[in-house]
Amino acid sequence: MTVPFDNPLRDPADHRLPRIAGPCALVMFGVTGDLARKKLLPAIYDMANRGLLPPGFALVGFARRDWTENEFAASVLESVKQRARTPFRDEVWQQLVQGIRFVRGTFDDGEAFARLADTLAELDRDHGTGGNHAFYLSIPPKDFESVITQLTTHGLTQTSPDTWSRVIIEKPFGHDLASAIELERTVAKGFEPNSVFRIDHYLGKETVQNMLALRFANQLFEPIWNRAYVSHVQITQAEDIGIESRAGYYDGVGAARDVIQNHLLQLLALTAMEEPTSFAADQLRDEKRKVLAALRPVADVRRDTARGQYLGGWAGGELVGGYLQEDGVSPTSGTETYAAIRVEIDNRRWAGVPFYLRTGKRLPRRVTEVALVLRPAPHLPFTHTDVEQLGSNALVMRIQPDEGVTIRFGAKVPATLMEIRDVTMDFAYGSSFAVTSPEAYERLILDVLVGDKPLFPQADEVELSWRLLDPVLDYWAASETPPEGYASGTWGPASANELLARDGFTWRRP
Amino acid sequence: MTVPFDNPLRDPADHRLPRIAGPCALVMFGVTGDLARKKLLPAIYDMANRGLLPPGFALVGFARRDWTENEFAASVLESVKQRARTPFRDEVWQQLVQGIRFVRGTFDDGEAFARLADTLAELDRDHGTGGNHAFYLSIPPKDFESVITQLTTHGLTQTSPDTWSRVIIEKPFGHDLASAIELERTVAKGFEPNSVFRIDHYLGKETVQNMLALRFANQLFEPIWNRAYVSHVQITQAEDIGIESRAGYYDGVGAARDVIQNHLLQLLALTAMEEPTSFAADQLRDEKRKVLAALRPVADVRRDTARGQYLGGWAGGELVGGYLQEDGVSPTSGTETYAAIRVEIDNRRWAGVPFYLRTGKRLPRRVTEVALVLRPAPHLPFTHTDVEQLGSNALVMRIQPDEGVTIRFGAKVPATLMEIRDVTMDFAYGSSFAVTSPEAYERLILDVLVGDKPLFPQADEVELSWRLLDPVLDYWAASETPPEGYASGTWGPASANELLARDGFTWRRP
Repeated sequence: MTVPFDNPLRDPADHRLPRIAGPCALVMFGVTGDLARKKLLPAIYDMANRGLLPPGFALVGFARRDWTENEFAASVLESVKQRARTPFRDEVWQQLVQGIRFVRGTFDDGEAFARLADTLAELDRDHGTGGNHAFYLSIPPKDFESVITQLTTHGLTQTSPDTWSRVIIEKPFGHDLASAIELERTVAKGFEPNSVFRIDHYLGKETVQNMLALRFANQLFEPIWNRAYVSHVQITQAEDIGIESRAGYYDGVGAARDVIQNHLLQLLALTAMEEPTSFAADQLRDEKRKVLAALRPVADVRRDTARGQYLGGWAGGELVGGYLQEDGVSPTSGTETYAAIRVEIDNRRWAGVPFYLRTGKRLPRRVTEVALVLRPAPHLPFTHTDVEQLGSNALVMRIQPDEGVTIRFGAKVPATLMEIRDVTMDFAYGSSFAVTSPEAYERLILDVLVGDKPLFPQADEVELSWRLLDPVLDYWAASETPPEGYASGTWGPASANELLARDGFTWRRP
Repeated sequence: MTVPFDNPLRDPADHRLPRIAGPCALVMFGVTGDLARKKLLPAIYDMANRGLLPPGFALVGFARRDWTENEFAASVLESVKQRARTPFRDEVWQQLVQGIRFVRGTFDDGEAFARLADTLAELDRDHGTGGNHAFYLSIPPKDFESVITQLTTHGLTQTSPDTWSRVIIEKPFGHDLASAIELERTVAKGFEPNSVFRIDHYLGKETVQNMLALRFANQLFEPIWNRAYVSHVQITQAEDIGIESRAGYYDGVGAARDVIQNHLLQLLALTAMEEPTSFAADQLRDEKRKVLAALRPVADVRRDTARGQYLGGWAGGELVGGYLQEDGVSPTSGTETYAAIRVEIDNRRWAGVPFYLRTGKRLPRRVTEVALVLRPAPHLPFTHTDVEQLGSNALVMRIQPDEGVTIRFGAKVPATLMEIRDVTMDFAYGSSFAVTSPEAYERLILDVLVGDKPLFPQADEVELSWRLLDPVLDYWAASETPPEGYASGTWGPASANELLARDGFTWRRP
C-alpha cells in the first residue's frame, strides 16, 4: 500500500511506518556525471523498489547530451542494473519509467529551461507530481549561478502554499570562507534557507546516525563522554585508493577541503555536541553549531597540522605511481593528499581534550572511524608487570566498512596471577540486524523529498568549518615547503605522527 | 627449568614468571570421594604437567580403604587419565608417582596418624618435601574435630621458622552462624588463621578474577559502577541438572546454604566492593568484608526472598521426576532447590540499589553471571515509538559456561528514521586468548602450596554471610508452607518473579 507522507491517517510521530515521499518531480542537473550514474540513479530505483516513491513521482534529467527520452531512460536502466543495491524487478522499473523525462540543454540556455518548465508543467498536469519540484545540482559550483538564475527566470523556484521547490547541492560548499558565502548568496537568490539541502553523504550513513542513538538512547556511554574520562579523540577517514580519474576535481582542492571541511568536522560536531532536546533539524543544528563555534582557532599551523602527498609505492599488491605522476595533475602540484589537524573545543565538556582529524589517500586500508581514547585508570591496584601490556580504554564508532562499535579494555590473561592485556568487544551492525543498511543517498534523497532537514548541514555550519580551515589553507598556500611525501600504502607523513607524539599519543592503526 | 618459589633470583613482584610451588607434601583426607577423584587429583597432575610442582612434591592419600600404595597410585592414575585437562605424559606421571604415598586409617585412629607422621617424616628426609605439609580436608565437617585433634597430637600442625603447615577446608563452612563459629574454633585448635585456606572454587575461576581486572584495570566501567547509574544487580547461578546422587549431602542443606552463602555472596562482594589499594589478601578481604558488613538484614523474609522445590517435568529432552522422588530424599522434605534473595547494601555507593541473588537446580540452562542493569537514560531525545523496544543497558559478566563480558545497549535499526532496538556486544574469553583457562582447583591448590591467600574467604566473611542468611533460614524452617513447586526445566517458582516485579524489574533469561 502506498501511503503518501501527508496521509491524514498517518501519525507523523509514529516512526515505525515508513516515510514515503509525496507527489513530486526530481530534476537532476549533471545526470551524466559519475555521481549520478554510480550513486544517485541507482538510489532512486532502490527507493522505488522499497515502495518509498509514490506513483506521482518523476525523474527529469537535464544535460547537454543529445539524448532522446528513451535513450536517457536506457542509460538510467543501465546504471540501475549495474549499481542498484536491491534486486531488479521489472514492474518497479515499468512504473518508474513512466515518470522519466529528459531535457537537453546547457546551463545558460534559456530555451532549454523553458522546455524544462513545460516538462514539469506537463508532469504536474498529467503525471500527478503536484507542483512539487526538487532540483539536484550535481554540477560544479561555478555553474550554480546560471542554473539558479534560469530556474528563477522561468518561475521554477516559485511555490504556492500547497507546493514546494527545493534545491540539493553537493560539496564542495565553496573553496574557502569567502567563496562559500558567495555561493550561499547565489543559492539564496532562488531558494529560501529552508529549501536548501546540502548533502554531506556521511550524514546519511546508518553508522553516523547510530552515533546519535549510541550517545543519547543509552545510559552507558554518556558518563564517560567528557574531559574527565576522555584523553583525546581520533577521527579518521582513510582511503586505500589514490585520486583515480578525479585529478580535474582534486588537484588544487586537496584532502583538507575535500574531507576535513565537511565530513570530518561534521563527525566531530556529532561526537562532541551536547544532547539536543529532540532531533528536530533546528535543535540538532544548534548543538552542532555550538561545537563548531567553540573550536579554538589553530594557533600554530606548523605545530597543529600535518600534510602530505603520496609517493609511489606498493598499494593493494601493486606498484603504483605517486600523486605527481597522476594524469591531469600538475607536476609541481602542492595539493595535499593527506591532511591531519589537531583542534580543541573551548567548552566545559571538552576543554583540554585534543581532537585529531586525519584523512588521506593511498593509506593501508579504507576505513572511517571515530575513536574516543580514555585516560588511564587513575590508580591501578596491580603491579607494574601485571599491566605493562595495557593500553588505554577506547570506544570506537566504526563508520565504514566494518560498521559497528568496538570497545577496547583490559582483561586478565588466563593462567596468570593477574596479568592484564588489552582485548576488544564488538558490536557488528551487519550481524545484529537482518535489514541491510540502505545507501546514504537513499536516505538523504528521501529526506529531501519528504522535507526532513536534520541530516543536512546548515549554511552557518559550513561557514564555521571554513573559519577554522581558512588560516590553515592560507598558511599552506604561502608555505615554501611542499607537502611531505609519504609512500603509498603507509599511514601518511612523519609529521602526522609528530603531531600526536608531541601530546604523548599515537595514531590508532585501525 | 624448575624455579622454586623462594628462588632469590626471582623478583616476587614480577608476575610474568610462573609461580611454582616449593617443596611440600599434600595430604588428602577423603581421597576416595567424588571431589578428589573428579577434580583434585586431576588438578594435581595438571599442575605437575604445567611444571608448577617441584621434584620435592608428595601426595599422601589418607582413607579407610584397604589399599596398598600401588593400588592408590593406580586409582590416582585412573582419575588423571579420565579427567585431566592437559594431555597425559608418562614422564610427568613417573616423576609424580615417586612422591605418592597412602596411609590407611579412620579419622579417630591414632595409630594411622602415627603412620602418617612417619610417612611425612620419611618424605621430608628422602623425597625433599622440606617439612612443609598441607592437609586437604575433603571430608564432612563433623570429622574435622577428630582429624585436627589427631594432627595436633602427632605434632603435624607444628612448624619451625622454615616450614609451614596448612589446612584446606571446603564448604559447607557450617550450617548456620553458630555451627560456623564452632567449626572455626575446631580448626583454630590446630592452625592459626593465616594457615587456614577455605576453598570457594568460584573464586578460582578465571572469569571471577577477571571481574577484578574489568573493574580496576579499566577507566571505562568505574564511572557507571554506582547507584547513580545502576538500577539493580542480578547475580545468577543456574544449574540444569537436579541433585543427581547427592541427596545425602543436599537434603536438609538446600540451595541457600549450598550456593548463596558462599559463591553468590562472594560474587556480590567482588561486584560491590570499593577498589582495594592492592590485591594483597588482607586488603582484598577488608574490602569484601566491608560490603558483607554493610548488607542490610532482610527485614521481611516473605517479601524479600523466594524458595522453590523442583517438580517433575521436561529437562534436557527427558521427562524427569521431582525432588521428592529423588533417591535418598525424604518424601516430606522441605529442602529448597531454588532460592532467591533481595539484599541491599547500606553504603554511599549502593544505597537503594537492590541486589538479587538466585540459584536453582533443574532450571533451563547451566549459567552463572553477574548482571548490572543500568537505569534508563534520564532523557531520550526520541519519540515514544522510536524507543518502544528499548530495554535498559546492561553489563553482564559471564562466569560460566560462555566465559566473557556482554554489554547490552540500544542501536539504530537500519533503514528507519530513528528507531532504536537493543543489541549486544560481546567479549569472549575463549576466542581472545590462546591460553585455555586452568581449572579453578589448579589455581587454588597452587595458591595454597605457594601461600597466596587473596582468593580464599576469611572467617569473618563466612560469619557475615551466615549473619545475613540465618534469619531467612530460620523463617523458612519455621514456616508451615513448603517451598513452592516449580516444573523442572523452568526458571523457578512464581514467587521469584514477584520478588522483582514488586520493584518493577524482571529476571534476565540468560
